[in-house]
Amino acid sequence: MNHLSCGTSRIVGCRFSIYPMSDRFVDIILGALRNTDLSKVWSHTDDVSTWVRGRSEHVFDVVQSIFLHSAAGGEHAVLNATFSIGCPGDTQGDAFMSTDDMRMNAERNQAIPLQVAAHFALYPLGTPDYMDTIYEIIGLAKEEGTFDESAHYASRLEGEAQRVFATLEHAFNRAQKTDKSHVVMTTTISANSPSTK
Amino acid sequence: MNHLSCGTSRIVGCRFSIYPMSDRFVDIILGALRNTDLSKVWSHTDDVSTWVRGRSEHVFDVVQSIFLHSAAGGEHAVLNATFSIGCPGDTQGDAFMSTDDMRMNAERNQAIPLQVAAHFALYPLGTPDYMDTIYEIIGLAKEEGTFDESAHYASRLEGEAQRVFATLEHAFNRAQKTDKSHVVMTTTISANSPSTK
Repeated sequence: MNHLSCGTSRIVGCRFSIYPMSDRFVDIILGALRNTDLSKVWSHTDDVSTWVRGRSEHVFDVVQSIFLHSAAGGEHAVLNATFSIGCPGDTQGDAFMSTDDMRMNAERNQAIPLQVAAHFALYPLGTPDYMDTIYEIIGLAKEEGTFDESAHYASRLEGEAQRVFATLEHAFNRAQKTDKSHVVMTTTISANSPSTK
Repeated sequence: MNHLSCGTSRIVGCRFSIYPMSDRFVDIILGALRNTDLSKVWSHTDDVSTWVRGRSEHVFDVVQSIFLHSAAGGEHAVLNATFSIGCPGDTQGDAFMSTDDMRMNAERNQAIPLQVAAHFALYPLGTPDYMDTIYEIIGLAKEEGTFDESAHYASRLEGEAQRVFATLEHAFNRAQKTDKSHVVMTTTISANSPSTK
């Protein structure tokens, strides 16, 4: 257990939904949840979304796992997610910050081959130089080879799911300029779409 | 034609996707598009999302129509949408700002009965007092009777679809403090869900 990092870490949260475009959507979502180890995050579900909260690496690990398992059967599935850090008053789930950093779903996540297309947008809040941060993060995605093009109100990523998720995690972490930064990142990730681009 | 308002209006855009949780998702989406009058907005679609841009009232009118028609058949359908105004460099589609303000889909929108649950979040960008604006808008939703509760990273609305969409439009418009404000609002609206809250 890496308790030493506990005091300097900040809790990350994600509100997300999975949309399998299938009559079997309930089974697909429940199956993806069963195949995901949620033991290192706080979680809660209502009829619109699920929330997970904890250390950044576990939040990204869990969301990636639930999406990969939802799409692994080949049906068209979409993830919509809002990641947040530094929201004023955001403390519920702090107990999960004392876990270690070993990702519980990483091995299985790596084993699922999947091509995805994604849009993402970053919102650094409370700061006048937010556009500079956004341009910097677009540069990061270009370096990582997942950037496809800019679109209105979003940037488009494409490629293997694991690489796209890695870019999103790096972008979210890099966008935090100080340990008080409030940053929100939204993303829509689509797999097995019958549409052409 | 109300050309006089053209110079002071600002273009509003929305990036959105509709997710019908059904094997018939393609037919449902295409049917909803056929039943929606898009003549007063600029629009573009890729394999992840659709963009509509133009005057605020037409953007909200069109997005509401596409969602209502997607859910009208009783199948579980979700709208995910990001509304934006004031994004630096955002001008494409400006020609549509010279339309009049008569909503092309309002009458049919009013005729579709539908109960929905929604999450929404507001991101006023580039300003240190963004949290004050967010609290003000939550107050507005409470006044309008659609507010249900606060949730992590979002507020929850519930009720008739028409009233929920009205609150979202009012919230987005009210959050603009100056004619240079850059404001983003995200929302997830769910209808006919088999889940309980």
